[in-house]
Amino acid sequence: MNIRPLGDRVVIKKIEAEETTKSGIVLPGTAKEKPQEAEVVAVGAGGLVDGKEVKMEVKVKDRVLFSKYAGNEVKIDGVEYTILRQDDILAVIEK
Amino acid sequence: MNIRPLGDRVVIKKIEAEETTKSGIVLPGTAKEKPQEAEVVAVGAGGLVDGKEVKMEVKVKDRVLFSKYAGNEVKIDGVEYTILRQDDILAVIEK
Amino acid sequence: MNIRPLGDRVVIKKIEAEETTKSGIVLPGTAKEKPQEAEVVAVGAGGLVDGKEVKMEVKVKDRVLFSKYAGNEVKIDGVEYTILRQDDILAVIEK
Amino acid sequence: MNIRPLGDRVVIKKIEAEETTKSGIVLPGTAKEKPQEAEVVAVGAGGLVDGKEVKMEVKVKDRVLFSKYAGNEVKIDGVEYTILRQDDILAVIEK
Amino acid sequence: MNIRPLGDRVVIKKIEAEETTKSGIVLPGTAKEKPQEAEVVAVGAGGLVDGKEVKMEVKVKDRVLFSKYAGNEVKIDGVEYTILRQDDILAVIEK
Amino acid sequence: MNIRPLGDRVVIKKIEAEETTKSGIVLPGTAKEKPQEAEVVAVGAGGLVDGKEVKMEVKVKDRVLFSKYAGNEVKIDGVEYTILRQDDILAVIEK
Amino acid sequence: MNIRPLGDRVVIKKIEAEETTKSGIVLPGTAKEKPQEAEVVAVGAGGLVDGKEVKMEVKVKDRVLFSKYAGNEVKIDGVEYTILRQDDILAVIEK
Repeated sequence: MNIRPLGDRVVIKKIEAEETTKSGIVLPGTAKEKPQEAEVVAVGAGGLVDGKEVKMEVKVKDRVLFSKYAGNEVKIDGVEYTILRQDDILAVIEK
Repeated sequence: MNIRPLGDRVVIKKIEAEETTKSGIVLPGTAKEKPQEAEVVAVGAGGLVDGKEVKMEVKVKDRVLFSKYAGNEVKIDGVEYTILRQDDILAVIEK
Repeated sequence: MNIRPLGDRVVIKKIEAEETTKSGIVLPGTAKEKPQEAEVVAVGAGGLVDGKEVKMEVKVKDRVLFSKYAGNEVKIDGVEYTILRQDDILAVIEK
Repeated sequence: MNIRPLGDRVVIKKIEAEETTKSGIVLPGTAKEKPQEAEVVAVGAGGLVDGKEVKMEVKVKDRVLFSKYAGNEVKIDGVEYTILRQDDILAVIEK
Repeated sequence: MNIRPLGDRVVIKKIEAEETTKSGIVLPGTAKEKPQEAEVVAVGAGGLVDGKEVKMEVKVKDRVLFSKYAGNEVKIDGVEYTILRQDDILAVIEK
Repeated sequence: MNIRPLGDRVVIKKIEAEETTKSGIVLPGTAKEKPQEAEVVAVGAGGLVDGKEVKMEVKVKDRVLFSKYAGNEVKIDGVEYTILRQDDILAVIEK
Repeated sequence: MNIRPLGDRVVIKKIEAEETTKSGIVLPGTAKEKPQEAEVVAVGAGGLVDGKEVKMEVKVKDRVLFSKYAGNEVKIDGVEYTILRQDDILAVIEK
């Protein structure tokens, strides 16, 4: 992975529905914003972000739930990633 | 429970209307936003959130009232949960 | 009362119009938001709320005026309460 | 006066147009928000309000100009008052 | 002048177009908000305003340019004044 | 120049298109907000602005790029100027 | 490059689609805001920006991904640049 996210940003790779089923996470059909499962592929250094100290709480290879509409999508070497702020990550799924 | 919420987030499981009646909490029919009863199943570590120190005031198994429209819903192993910030929890119901 | 409000939240019980008349408080008919009289039934611990120190200035049994549209309503054992932030309380009525 | 306003709030009693004329204050007819003259009847203790130190600069019996649309109206023993934040008071009229 | 503005507020008296011409300030006809020339007649004490230290940079008799739509108008003894925050004053015109 | 801008404000004089061409700056025709070239004619003292320390980074005679829709226009002795905050200046053009 | 961006601003030069393909970054066609690849040509000094300490994390010649709608465009000596805040840069592409 050749992307270094700035500040409190994190690069994640979405996990498709098939894999999602394997890990037991199913996202219900509701009118609410639905989080999506992903794997962390790169983590910013944290530190001062908008004048506030941010400590990174996720690490590469973590499985995370994130808000589906957060962040920016980008494709690298044919693979789609999402770059978002750590604060848009809701939780880490521990195995 | 295999989800570790980040920062000041809390994972809760809604308590259905039947259980609600048993604990004596009934939500009135008004035009206002109505809080809902739930049980806490996982609590973030707190600490610095958006540059502000947050101390977690709820713990696993607490019965809480939360704002119905707050947070994100997610289903794990067939059970629906809500991930929300502690600040969206209104009160703890003490038994 | 078996509800412990979090942070700077306060649980109050509205005082009906009849009682209001007795205490001499009458709310005028205007287009503005009208405050309502209530009795405090539970008070949060205050402390750090959204990163700011909050000192609770009301106590259980205080008569207060609050902004009618503030907070969340909840019914416990058949009685309606409102959970709101202390900052939505305008004044204490001293007897 | 039996109302103790919380934090940086102030209770004022509007001075009617007749009195206004006597003190020499006349509010011009413009499209802008017009301030109104009032007498202070109760003053909050100030201190930490929304995490910021507030020092009260008005005292009971001060004549003040305030923004007409600010605050909440309440009638006590048949008299109408307005409860507003000190920051909505524009100036003190010194005699 | 018998008005004491609170906090960082300033009372100014607009200078009419005739006077404006004399001092060489002419306001161009554009779609943008146009500043207007005025004389300072009263200055608040500054200090803590909304939790921030404000030092007053204008003094009575200063000629200032201010944003035309800022502040509140008030008429005292037949003269129109504007009460605005110092931050709505753009510049002092030095003679 | 007889204007002293307050706080972090700066007075600039726009450089017309002809001059712009000479310095090599040409503003492309896009739907985006386009910056404009100007010369600094007066600089505020900086210091505490809205409770935050501001250090002035531009000086009189600097050539700057600024956001075309920022600030207030004023005409002095027949010349048009713009008064804006330093933060609305994008860059200094060094010769 | 004769532009010195102020504060936390950065001047970048977009890399056209052809070059983008060479580096392996392809931007997918979605309804979301798409980041774009660029090369950094000038970096502000950082320091106190809006009262907050900002440390510059990018340097001249860095390849970066930035939010396509951020910043202001300007053409210098016939070349188009974008001036934006460092916070609008999502990530550095490391070679």
